[in-house]
Parts: sequence; C-alpha cells; structure tokens
Amino acid sequence: MTDPTGPTAEPDLDAGLLDPVRAGSPAEAATGDAAFLRALLDAEAALTRAQAAVGAAPAEAARAVTEAAADTYRFDVRSIALRARGGGNPVIPLVADLTATAGEWGAYVHRGATSQDILDTAAMLVAARTLGAVLADLARTESALAGLAAAHRDTAMPGRTLTQHAVPTTFGLKAAGWRSLVLDARDRLLAVRDGLPAQLGGAAGTLAAFADACAAIDAIDADADSGAEGAAALPAAYARELGLAVPLIPWHTLRTPVADLAGALALTAGALGKIATDVLTLSRTEIAELAEGTGGGSSAMPHKANPVRAILVASAARRSPHLAASLYACLPAEDERPAGAWHAEWEPLRELLRLTGGAAHHTAALAEGLRVDAAAMRAHLDVTGGLLVSERLSVVLAPLLGRARARALLTELAARTRAEGRGLAELLAEAAAGVPELAGVDLAELTDPTRATGLAGHLTDRALERR
Amino acid sequence: MTDPTGPTAEPDLDAGLLDPVRAGSPAEAATGDAAFLRALLDAEAALTRAQAAVGAAPAEAARAVTEAAADTYRFDVRSIALRARGGGNPVIPLVADLTATAGEWGAYVHRGATSQDILDTAAMLVAARTLGAVLADLARTESALAGLAAAHRDTAMPGRTLTQHAVPTTFGLKAAGWRSLVLDARDRLLAVRDGLPAQLGGAAGTLAAFADACAAIDAIDADADSGAEGAAALPAAYARELGLAVPLIPWHTLRTPVADLAGALALTAGALGKIATDVLTLSRTEIAELAEGTGGGSSAMPHKANPVRAILVASAARRSPHLAASLYACLPAEDERPAGAWHAEWEPLRELLRLTGGAAHHTAALAEGLRVDAAAMRAHLDVTGGLLVSERLSVVLAPLLGRARARALLTELAARTRAEGRGLAELLAEAAAGVPELAGVDLAELTDPTRATGLAGHLTDRALERR
Amino acid sequence: MTDPTGPTAEPDLDAGLLDPVRAGSPAEAATGDAAFLRALLDAEAALTRAQAAVGAAPAEAARAVTEAAADTYRFDVRSIALRARGGGNPVIPLVADLTATAGEWGAYVHRGATSQDILDTAAMLVAARTLGAVLADLARTESALAGLAAAHRDTAMPGRTLTQHAVPTTFGLKAAGWRSLVLDARDRLLAVRDGLPAQLGGAAGTLAAFADACAAIDAIDADADSGAEGAAALPAAYARELGLAVPLIPWHTLRTPVADLAGALALTAGALGKIATDVLTLSRTEIAELAEGTGGGSSAMPHKANPVRAILVASAARRSPHLAASLYACLPAEDERPAGAWHAEWEPLRELLRLTGGAAHHTAALAEGLRVDAAAMRAHLDVTGGLLVSERLSVVLAPLLGRARARALLTELAARTRAEGRGLAELLAEAAAGVPELAGVDLAELTDPTRATGLAGHLTDRALERR
Amino acid sequence: MTDPTGPTAEPDLDAGLLDPVRAGSPAEAATGDAAFLRALLDAEAALTRAQAAVGAAPAEAARAVTEAAADTYRFDVRSIALRARGGGNPVIPLVADLTATAGEWGAYVHRGATSQDILDTAAMLVAARTLGAVLADLARTESALAGLAAAHRDTAMPGRTLTQHAVPTTFGLKAAGWRSLVLDARDRLLAVRDGLPAQLGGAAGTLAAFADACAAIDAIDADADSGAEGAAALPAAYARELGLAVPLIPWHTLRTPVADLAGALALTAGALGKIATDVLTLSRTEIAELAEGTGGGSSAMPHKANPVRAILVASAARRSPHLAASLYACLPAEDERPAGAWHAEWEPLRELLRLTGGAAHHTAALAEGLRVDAAAMRAHLDVTGGLLVSERLSVVLAPLLGRARARALLTELAARTRAEGRGLAELLAEAAAGVPELAGVDLAELTDPTRATGLAGHLTDRALERR
Repeated sequence: MTDPTGPTAEPDLDAGLLDPVRAGSPAEAATGDAAFLRALLDAEAALTRAQAAVGAAPAEAARAVTEAAADTYRFDVRSIALRARGGGNPVIPLVADLTATAGEWGAYVHRGATSQDILDTAAMLVAARTLGAVLADLARTESALAGLAAAHRDTAMPGRTLTQHAVPTTFGLKAAGWRSLVLDARDRLLAVRDGLPAQLGGAAGTLAAFADACAAIDAIDADADSGAEGAAALPAAYARELGLAVPLIPWHTLRTPVADLAGALALTAGALGKIATDVLTLSRTEIAELAEGTGGGSSAMPHKANPVRAILVASAARRSPHLAASLYACLPAEDERPAGAWHAEWEPLRELLRLTGGAAHHTAALAEGLRVDAAAMRAHLDVTGGLLVSERLSVVLAPLLGRARARALLTELAARTRAEGRGLAELLAEAAAGVPELAGVDLAELTDPTRATGLAGHLTDRALERR
Repeated sequence: MTDPTGPTAEPDLDAGLLDPVRAGSPAEAATGDAAFLRALLDAEAALTRAQAAVGAAPAEAARAVTEAAADTYRFDVRSIALRARGGGNPVIPLVADLTATAGEWGAYVHRGATSQDILDTAAMLVAARTLGAVLADLARTESALAGLAAAHRDTAMPGRTLTQHAVPTTFGLKAAGWRSLVLDARDRLLAVRDGLPAQLGGAAGTLAAFADACAAIDAIDADADSGAEGAAALPAAYARELGLAVPLIPWHTLRTPVADLAGALALTAGALGKIATDVLTLSRTEIAELAEGTGGGSSAMPHKANPVRAILVASAARRSPHLAASLYACLPAEDERPAGAWHAEWEPLRELLRLTGGAAHHTAALAEGLRVDAAAMRAHLDVTGGLLVSERLSVVLAPLLGRARARALLTELAARTRAEGRGLAELLAEAAAGVPELAGVDLAELTDPTRATGLAGHLTDRALERR
Repeated sequence: MTDPTGPTAEPDLDAGLLDPVRAGSPAEAATGDAAFLRALLDAEAALTRAQAAVGAAPAEAARAVTEAAADTYRFDVRSIALRARGGGNPVIPLVADLTATAGEWGAYVHRGATSQDILDTAAMLVAARTLGAVLADLARTESALAGLAAAHRDTAMPGRTLTQHAVPTTFGLKAAGWRSLVLDARDRLLAVRDGLPAQLGGAAGTLAAFADACAAIDAIDADADSGAEGAAALPAAYARELGLAVPLIPWHTLRTPVADLAGALALTAGALGKIATDVLTLSRTEIAELAEGTGGGSSAMPHKANPVRAILVASAARRSPHLAASLYACLPAEDERPAGAWHAEWEPLRELLRLTGGAAHHTAALAEGLRVDAAAMRAHLDVTGGLLVSERLSVVLAPLLGRARARALLTELAARTRAEGRGLAELLAEAAAGVPELAGVDLAELTDPTRATGLAGHLTDRALERR
Repeated sequence: MTDPTGPTAEPDLDAGLLDPVRAGSPAEAATGDAAFLRALLDAEAALTRAQAAVGAAPAEAARAVTEAAADTYRFDVRSIALRARGGGNPVIPLVADLTATAGEWGAYVHRGATSQDILDTAAMLVAARTLGAVLADLARTESALAGLAAAHRDTAMPGRTLTQHAVPTTFGLKAAGWRSLVLDARDRLLAVRDGLPAQLGGAAGTLAAFADACAAIDAIDADADSGAEGAAALPAAYARELGLAVPLIPWHTLRTPVADLAGALALTAGALGKIATDVLTLSRTEIAELAEGTGGGSSAMPHKANPVRAILVASAARRSPHLAASLYACLPAEDERPAGAWHAEWEPLRELLRLTGGAAHHTAALAEGLRVDAAAMRAHLDVTGGLLVSERLSVVLAPLLGRARARALLTELAARTRAEGRGLAELLAEAAAGVPELAGVDLAELTDPTRATGLAGHLTDRALERR
C-alpha cells in the first residue's frame, strides 16, 4: 500500500470533494467553517453591544469589540479547531483570540456568557442565513413547476402504481403534486425560520453573571436599572442585535429549535427527493418521458444522458433522515448543559442544512430545465394494448350490462388483448357490435386513454390556486 | 436447545410482553390491530355514506355498509393479516369480507377507491385518536410541572453542566423548563392533529372511477350533478364523515402528513426523554434529590428504588428518532403509488404513536408523583466547599479589587478550599479582614449559594405565564 | 369522528395486520410473545438445572422447575405484560408466576439471578431459533439463484447504470451477484449465530449471589466444590443446557452480541432488498424482463401484476437500517446495568429478526418462482439503436483508426443513429465501406450486443464456484 | 442580521471547526479531501501499472502515469469538487486533469474503467489507512485498560444498576469489561480490514472494455494472453498494486464491503461510548471516583474539571449509529450502478471513519491518563448504610434462620437503617446477639462490602487472559 503520510496538501481541509450535492451552492457558502466563524463573531459582538444597550457596558466597548470581530480573516480557523479540543468547543479559543484582538476592551468580550450561548446563537444565525438561500431556491422550483403543471394540465400519461401501469393520469397533476410538496416545505421552513431564537443564559441558564455584573454597575451608577432588570432585558437586546427571536427562557437543554429545524429540513429534502425519484424513473432509457436539460454525458457511451441533478438530489434525500434522527436523538440532554448531546448536534445540523440547501439548488435548475416528452407519454398509454382503461370500462359497462356480464366481457377481452396482440379498443368494438345495450355508447371516447384522466385537470387547477 | 415448535399459545399474537412503555396505555388501545381494523372499517363505511351524500349511491347502501362495518368482532384480524400477503396490504381481504357481510349492497363497498385510500385514511384516524390520548397526558404533565415549578420557585440546587457543578440554579426553573418543552410538544401535536387529512384518489389519484361512476348515474338521473362535480365533491364529504381535514389533492405519494406526524411525535418523545433523563440523574443513589413516588423495589436489595417510569420513558426517547427517520425516509415515494415506500410506513408510524403515547402516560404519573428533596438540593450546594459561587465572586470582586487582584485572590482561595477542606466563605471572610476595599461588602450574602441563583425566579415566572 | 372506545376485539393484541412481510412466516412464529415467553421459561428452567449440575441445587428442584416451566399455556402473557410495568421488565412477574407454579421448589426459581440474565438469555435463544429459519430460507434462495445464474449464463441484457443503458451484461451475472450477496449474508449470520452467548451475572455482574449460595452449601456439605468454584462453573453449565455459547464475562453492559446481530441482520435485509429492487425495476410495465410467478392481480385492472413479494421485501429493507441503528445506539450503556439503554433494545431486536426473517421467506419464494423473459432482454439491447456497443467500438477502432479519427466517426454515427432512426450497425457498415483500415474487421460481430458482454460468463462461473 | 456575504476566508473549506472529536487526529489526516485525492490518484496509477503487468499497456505508460499521479499538490481539490457536479462524481474531472498531466501517455489513464472503479477503490484505500490508525489507538487503550484492571483487581466499589447502588463490584472488573469491548472492536475491524477489496468492473461490471482492449492488443501481439485472459487477470494485478483484497466479482451494487465497515465502525464507536459513558457518570461532582488526567478547566469556575475527552467520545457514539444506518440503507442499489445509493455513501463512510478514529484517539489518551480514586469508591460502599450487602445477607442467613425469618429480620433492619441513620452492620450485630443460630457466624466479614464482590476477581483474571 502506498504510504499515505507522504506530502499531501493541507490534509485537514475539506473542499467538498465528496459532496457534489452542495459544492458551490449558496448553502455551502452559508455553512462552511468561515461562515460559522463569522456567526460566532457576530454573536460575540452582539453580546457586547447588547450589554451597552442595557447600560451594562460602555459604548466604546461595544464599538471596539464589534470592530475587533469584524474581520473574519484575522482569526485562524484551523488553530481554533485544534485548540477546541482542550475545552471541547471552539468558543473557548475564539474568545481568547477575540479578547486579545479587542485590546483594552477585552474584558467586555463574552462577559457573563457561556460557550453554549455563543455557539447556539451562531448556529441559529447560520440556519437563518442558509434557510434564506434554501427558500429562494424553493421559490424558483415552485415557479418552474407551476409552469410545467399549467402547460401540461392535459398531457395524459400512464399513472403508475406499484411499478405497473394502472390508469391514465396527467403530467400536469404530477407536476402540481410536486409543487404542493415544495409549498409544504416552504411553509414549514418559513415557520421555523421566523422563530429561530438567540441563546443567552450564562453558566447554568440563570443569567446570574449578567445579573451580578449589572448589580455591580448599579452600585456605582445610581441611574442604572437594577441588576435584575438590566440582566432581564439583555436577552431581548441581544436577539434584536442579531435579528433572531427572543427566547422565553434559555434553551441549553430544551432543544425545540434544533428539533424544529431537523423536521422541516428532513421534510424539505424528502420532498425534493420525491421529485428526483420521479425524474429518475421517467428518465429511464425505456421510458424517457422526462430528461434533464443538461445531461451527464459520456464520450465512450454517447447514448447516455445521466440525470445527474436528480441523482444528486436523490442521494441527499437518502442521507437527510439519518441526520435528522441524529438531532432528535439529542433532545434528551441532561442537566443544565449536557455532556455530549450538545456536541453531537453541531456537525449533523450543519450537514443537514447544507445538504438540503444543495439539493434545493440542484432541484431549482432541474425544474427549470426539465424536458417533457409528451409524445412519449402518449405512446406509453398504449403499451398495455389499451388495458389502461379497463377500470373505466368496468365502471361504465356494469350499469349497462350488469356487473357479472360486464366483468366476464372485460376478462375475456383482456385475455385476448394479451394473447392476440390487438388493442382493447378494437376488440371491444367488435364485441359490442351485436350487443344492443351498448348501442348508444361512444366506444371510441370510452377507450381513449387521454379521456380517462378523471379529475386530473380539476385537481391540477385546485392545486395551482394555492399560493 | 429446546424445541421451539412445541405447543405454544397463539404464536402469532403480541400482547405487549416486550414493551412495558405502552402496555396498558390509552395509546396502546388506540393503535392495536383491533383499533386499526376499526379505523379501516370506519373509512369504508364513511366512503359509502359520502357517495350517498353526493348522490352517487342509495341511502340504503350507506346504511347497509355502515351496519356491516359496525361490529369489529365480525372480522378475523389474523385471517386478514395472512391474506394481506397476496396483494401486499390488508385492505384487499378486508374489502372482500366486508363486501360479503354487506350482502346485496356489497357492490357499494369500496367503490372507486384504492386500498391506499382506505389504509391512509385509517392511519390518520388512528393518529387523531391516539393524539387525543397523548394530549390528555401532556396536559396532566404540564399541570403537575407547573405546580412543581411554582412550589419550588426558590428551591436552590446545584446547576450541573458537563457533569460538574457549575453555579446554583433552582428546581423551579428546571421544572419550568420541562414544562415549556411539554408545551412545545403540545403545540406541535395540536397543529398536526388539526390538519390530518382524509385520503381519496382512486387507482392513480385522479378520482377517475368516482367521476365515471357519477357520470354513469347522471346518464340515468338528469337531476344529478355532472359526474365531475359529484366526484369533486366526494373527498370533502368523505372527510366530513370522518372528522378529518379535506385534502387539497390526493397525497398517495405526497407524504407531508406522515412526515409532520413523525416530527411532532419525535419532538414529543424527546421532550419527555429530557425530563426522564434529568429524573434519572437526580435519582442516583449519591444525588437522590428526586425520587419517583412509587419505586421499583427489590426484596433482595431493599435500598433500591429504581426510577422505573423514568427508565421506560428514557427507553422510548432512545427509540423514537429511529422510527421518525424510518418515516422521513419514505418521503421519496415514486410514481402515483410506490412499491415499498408506502408499505414501510405502517408499522413505524403505529409504533411511534404508541411509544410516544405510552411515554406520555408514564410521564404524567411520574410528574404527578415526583418527590423533591429540597434538603438534599440545599446540602449539595456545599459539596464543592462553596466554590459554586466562584463565578459570582469574580464578577463582584473585580470592580472592587481590579481584575488581576480579584482573580489572584480567588485562585488562592479555591486552592486552599480544596487543600484544607475548609469552606470558601470562611476563608474569604478571613482574607477580607485586612482588605479595605471589601470593608462594606456583605460577604455572607455574597457567598450564600442560595442567593446566587441569578434570574432563576424571574425566568420561572415568565415561563409559567405561557399557557 | 367515530368513538374508538366502543366494543373492539382484544384491543391490546397484534396479529400482524400491518405487517404482511412477516405474517405467517417461520420468523414470526419464532419471535412472537409466545415464543419469547417460551424462551424466558427455558432460561429459568436451565438455570435451576445448571445449579443442580454444579451441586448447588437438588436434582428434584431441577426437575420440578423444568416441569413447571414446560407448559407456556399456564402463563398469561397479557397479565405479565401489564405487571411488567411495575419493575420495568417482564421477568419479575414471570418469576412470581413460575415460583408459584413450582410449589415447594419455588425457592430454586431464579435463585441468584437478575432479570437481565433471563431476558438477555431468552433474546439470544429467540435469535438462535429465528436465525435457523432465516438461514433455511437463504439456502433456498441461494439455490434458486444459482440455478438462474447457470441457466442464464449467456442471456444478454442491457447493463443499466444511473438509470441509463450503458453496455450489455447478462442476466446470469446479475443473478450470480444476487447469490453472492446471499452468501455474504449467510456467512455473517452463521458466524453470529455460533457465538450467541448465554447471560449470567447476578445483580451487578459479579455472580456474587451464586458464590454466596454455593458457599452456604459448602458449609453444610463438605464434598461440595468451594463456593467460588461452583459459581464459576455455573455459566458454562447454564449455557450448555441452552445450547448457547459460554460468555467470557457477564455482558449486561458489554453489548457486542446485540450489535453483531444488528449488523448481520441489517446486511441480510439489505442484500435481499438489492434483489427486490432489481426485480421491481425489471418488472416495470415498460421493461417487463422479470415477473414474479404469482402476481398481485386486480380485477378492475387486469393488466396489473404487482410484484408483491418484491415490494414487501423492499419495504423490509427500508426499515431495517433504522432498527439496526436503534440497537447500535444502545451500546453506550452506563454502569453495571443501564437505565433505558437495555430496555430500548427489546422491541427493535425482535422486530429486526422477524422483519429480516419475513423478507427471507418472501425472497425464497420470489427467487424460486421468478420468470425471466430472455426475449425482452434481447429486444431491449436494440432500444438505443445499437449505441449500447459504442464503448466497444471506441476501444476496438481506436488502434485501427487512431483515437481522434475513431472518436469523430463514432460521434457522427451516434448523432445519425438518433437523428435518422437507423441502427448503428447499419450506419457503420455503410461508413466502413470506403475505409481500408476496417477492411478485415468483422463488423457484424463487433456490433452484435450479445457478443459485447465482456467477461460476464467468466465472472458468473467464478461466482458460482463459491459455496 | 449581519450580511453574511461580506469578505470571509475561503467560505468553502472546512477545517474541523465544528468537530473537536477528530480535529488533529490521525484519522482526520487519513480521511480529508487531500487523503482522498491521494487515494484516487493511487487507484488510477495502480490501474495503469496493472495493465502493464498483464501486458495490456507499455511499461512506459505505467511509469508516466504513476509519475503524473505522484504529486497531490498538482491537483486542485476545489476545482475538482466543483466540476464533479457535471457528471455527479469527482473522478471524471480528476481523470481529465490526470490525463493532461500524463501528456503523451494520457491515453493510458483510466482506460476501460468506470468512475466507480476508482472511487470505490480509493474509499477502500482510505478505509484501510484509517483503520490502521484506529487499531493503533485501540491497542493503546487496551493496554492502558489492562493495566487498570490488574491494578484495581480488588478495588471494591458500588455496583450500580438502573441508577441505584445494587451490590459491590470492583473497578478491576469494570476496566476488564471495557477492555473486552475494545478487543471485540479490534477483532471486527481486523477482519474487515483484511478483506477490503479493490473495485474493477468497467462500465457495467463485465470488464468488457478491458477484454476488448486486451483482444485488440492480441490482434497485434501474438505472444499476448488472449483478451479474456488478460482482462481476467487484471483485477488481481490491480488489487496487488494497492495492497487490497481481490474481489470475486465487481461489487458496484453488491455493497457488502461498505456494510461490513459500517457495522465494525459502529460497534467500535459504541464500545468507546460505553467507556466514555461510565467515565462521565463516575466523574460527576457527587461521585468523583474517576477523573480525566487533564481537565477542561474554567477560570471563572475553578471547581470545574470537565471530563472533556469523555464528552467528545460520547458525542461520537451518539452520531455513529446514524452514519452506519445511512450506509446500510444504501445496500438496495438498483441495476448495475445506482442512481443515488452510491453517491449517498461517500460522506457518511468518510465521516464514520474519522469520527470513530477521533474517538479512538481521545479514548487512548483518556485511558492512559485516567485517575482512579479508590478511597472514594470505598467510601461510597457505605452510602446506603451498608444495605449494599443485603442480597448477600439474605442468601447466607436464609439457610440458617429459614427464609421467612431471615427475610423478616432483614426487612426490619433495612427499615431501621434508614430511619435511625445507623449502619446495617451495627444493627445486625445487636440483633444477632440473642440468636443462637447466628452464634458461629462471622458477622463482620458478612457485612463487609469489600468482601461481597463475588467472583469479580476471578472474572477479571479470566477477561485479562484474552489477548
């Protein structure tokens, strides 16, 4: 085996080599180490500004810490990552570096906070920023799918159930269904995003150090709020600085916000996965009713046009339930701050955000470029020799012939369709010739699969009314 | 090895032997095979009644099918389970049995529906019924926790983080935090329950057979709605019969309702798991601040009082994320009805419902019977020799002595506390004697851990205002 | 909503209504509550017999307890399930019932054991018995697949990658690949089965009560082994009675046996899922190269032949990874016996056993009845107009024409194949007419897709040599 | 909210900021993008060398491609990651770059292979290299635990079950149990590592392009093997170049090697998680029987010594089951190469490798530095007032007093122990004074908890005999 310890470039950095789902996507940029570092710094700066806002720190301190935290480049991510091992999280070394950077105002960095206040808040900031990108891509997707549904409102195709042709449906209804899933995802992501809370509790969630600090200031400055009042006002001021929701109480071990993200993101990735799965099926060489606008070609195999985007989205949908489960499994977090349950959230939450975001980005392009072969859809309605309308015939003929006679006739015709290789319509026309009960029946209409789409058009219209 | 094929009682029935979490709970009764069979029959009967309501079936048929479906005992669950293998789901043999039971009106059983219409609808009925039981138990839990939080608003105890004592907190704040999780769960379950939709789409989700059947009736009865109108009205009529929400379009492969259940239930089980985890920790022999009212005793070991309910709830919280992941993984369901993704939902959904329901039932009893040992909590505040107030001292002394001098003093006192086995309060009093800056400071107040609970009381009050 | 509290039959019993994967399978019978109760009783009886074998109990006690435990019917599973809530596991009430049944010898029931000794041992017994059934079904499957692979060694079909036709392969190689997965599963299950250990440790895994009991006997009977020796010999005697492996030390919180089962079963279910997935794809209406011998028919849709067995196996493969993860997540079990991690294993282990067993049973029937349509496979080789041999042509023509010229020629021909709807073979023959370098080339052979299967035959032979 | 699009450093690179489990570990270096790129290049170079070895390529080509692939720095990981989106995997752009680098010999790069051949092979190389590091850390851990077990063979401590003191055990037995888990993990990892196979199958797993290429050479060079023979020899030659096992047949969709890795790694992480969980419990402030050698200190809270390594290992054990489940869920991979199931493996496999490797690295340091407070263990044996020996007393006294009388006596003494706050030993001595049956009994020995450890020493010795 070749020696792996030879000179390799920056062995500790990931650049997305193994994840084309998210490589280059807005969600990747919003969740990478640099973005997370940015959010951590934003949280620290907001904390000092919030203390200034409630009178617990000088305005100069707020300006100085904000300035010190402004430039992500000043901080060495890798060094922080390595030093994070000492205390188990990256905030401890980051605070050391930021304190040094803030110089004389360093004492106002992180004052009264616990590491988890900053990391949780940063995670919510990263989530909020990523969800913005995801929602934008869902909006593109929704719009493209609405266009497809309207354009193909009456494009008949085989409805497929349990891998078999069942009865006709339309591509319009299928696209409208995809769109309704995208809207479901959008609604849930929006609800979650609007409630993402800042985190502020101090060492054990009582805000005690803030209260003590405010009280100490009171002792000097009689105009200040009482310690408790100042500290009680702090979380709201902090959340306001960050554009996050104000938490009712600290949530160090009350992880509803993380679980809500898990659920909404898993739903989103799964919804996109449904679209991808259908595209993969309908892109099969034998079916070829759909094709991605741009194909993963192969010079050696020019007939191949791999549905690459759908493949990548499908792979994301396979991974997301496990990431969500990772997060749900961290809900039972013991004590005031847990020994492991919190630490186990960080990577899965980030990964779920960027995987879903990458999938949304690919799906938007996929939906916008999707090629629909209506002729192929029409042709496939005849693959079963017209048997696709059997259900319809049995419903319509039963009142005319009686159930038993109708069923016997259809069973015979179905058998002959397969045995003789002739179409059901033709055979029925022959058989009906001598049957007076069927005299007035429009057999051509009845056996036309494009007329057997039920309420597909109506349902498509209804679904498209949803905004 | 003993022969396992000897005479054993009903080898194919489960009676909860391996699941004391749910045995005997309301959720178990609401989700068992009999309850599911009941819901399947309810769905079938409602379908015929709905067809009568829109003029597509005679009122006599509705009455007859409802009557035939009324008695669960008429149907042999095991026989249906075995025959379900033929077509892959239990609705097919159930329809055969119900059709036979309905006699001359048998033709109106299941007319125009697909198996999935009935099974999905039944699953939503079972979910709605189970959620009712879960919500009742959450209400009991919430009420008990509100009482505990109020009663112990000022009961100080060590705040524990990363397994170590950190700073004081109160049991009131802990109980209020638990309650807020329970309210989070309640809110999400309520939202999901109110949206649980009926399912009605026919073979491929186009409602075609319903439309054709209505049209056939129109041909005879000129007063009837047009076929399309009658069929279009059917889903709402059907949902109304069942007390479920009207679906926008059929959701055979648009599984948001199942994913929503997965997320809300996983959050609920995890929230209860948080409570159980804390109870387990605080029940440890060395800690013993909490005890379940009734203990799993042991005659050979009379000192043991196992926190059995908390153990069972914790075990449920370990299982639920995996069940939820099972359901999220079924979102990418191909075609109009999928080959496996649907079938894989049934058991995990049922299991997640009854596991969460069982956990809620145990937690209600746990919360109502919980014994709080405030004296033990108070005593543990001194375990570290008073070092629990170190953070407070450093905040308060820094402005008086300067940061460097305050830190040096505290570091020295902390070392001596551990080395000499004397309390920090005592050592500080000695050390302060000759320090003029500390002359006016109330050292007794400052080192009293029960005074160092920050805003715990305020936060508890805020949390309890939430309804 | 209909009242769910009306008279329903035995609301607390499951009879497999929601699980046609396992309903009626040998694995179901081997894992149900009755089978588990049987195994619990077997473990208790073996414990008393083992104590007699090492001289720590009278032979009469061994006989009496064995007799008392012989008849599963004497014990009320539901009552035990309900009483299990008191102490958190079913062994406690079972011991009470068995002690009563054993009458005067009741004192020898469960002597020195902890509940977990009995439940873990019973779980291993149930696992061993179920694996026997699974292995028998895998043997059937392996045999059927070996037959298919040999019969279709040279049956050419399109090789499909990323949903697209790529180059030809054979059905023989596909079936041989399936078989090799089945053999992988078999090997891993066998290895696990042979190591399944009995569990015996007493209250905290030190065998102390056994040692004390043996010592107490020594005090009376000078011929007895010393207490420690007798107790030390007990686990092996116990394991021998049960046909299980002797544990090195008690494994109450060292859960390798459970994790090994999880891994081997998840591999097995996944391997069967691979077969099912291929059958589902190749059964699609447009492809129809494979069909299950017996189809899930539909009277209203006579053209449907749902691949029901494959669907059920695929659904099992979707669920099994989550059940395995449940078990892996229980490995970090604290202390000498854990508060929840153990309890959370029971249902997932049982469910994974019976789900995998049910899937194996369906797969055996599926493999034995599978219908292969070699003509359809052959026909599909032409779906791309012969482009399936493009890779072959590029490899063969490059040395003759030079890479650049060969590529240009093929690119042109591929484009014309699609544009003109003519076959690649025909176009190549025309184009080659005036090219001297291609004069001696057997173009018919070169463009025959059935000749382009590479080493498929050789690989099939190699794979079939594995036993 | 602060604008996230401001100037941030390399937004697309991860440097381990969120993962102190693996930051700086050997496993991180062995699995990063650079290491993976190295492995991809190793696989490509080996392929050309193997073709030379079987006579299908000139030796100069082998040298040139090996040389071109030697320097990882020549290749731009980020560029490859971004271009990977086009075809869905990173091998396609890498081959383009390597071909360009190889200049005139570029035609021999990747000849006849499919992307999956190279990526799967690289994944196995990365796994093999990482497992080497993991095994080395397990060896360190095993050795340290063996030392602890031997040193503390007779250090008595409370055995804890279901959170409560049960009966005494020893720390030696606990450490020996941990070690046996580590050996279980080692054995499984070794077995998997030795079987990690190279992957070589070509476009659809038939090795067709290799066979055609070899045949083309035959046509020119009469001394060459026949095409089939040369191609058939290629996989073994390729595997030999890489130090990997020779696959029986291509395993593009027969994913046993990945599943085997998943299982062995999940077991390993879980085993380490068991150790961590125990360390966390026994490090609690109230228990403090164990401490990590180096503590995560806090300047504001000098009494805190967070068990940071155990926390990080515990967090890894929480995540690993979900990563393993991700991989098991990819087993049902359709066709000859799947559309998504393969792509979904890459990141979870890498993450599981490095997470487990990071956990192993931390655990080795944890085990080597663990501080055991035997005095605390001894003291805790008295926490229950001596009731820890109740089980022992009941076993020993029953034959002397009769069961009923013995039980009555113990129940009374237990009640008094708790009520009067006196020790059981003292109360028993008083009570025994007037009881002739207890005259000769050594009550001091009987109530000494350090003498009540059963076979703990014997079991420890047995466990340590395992190598």
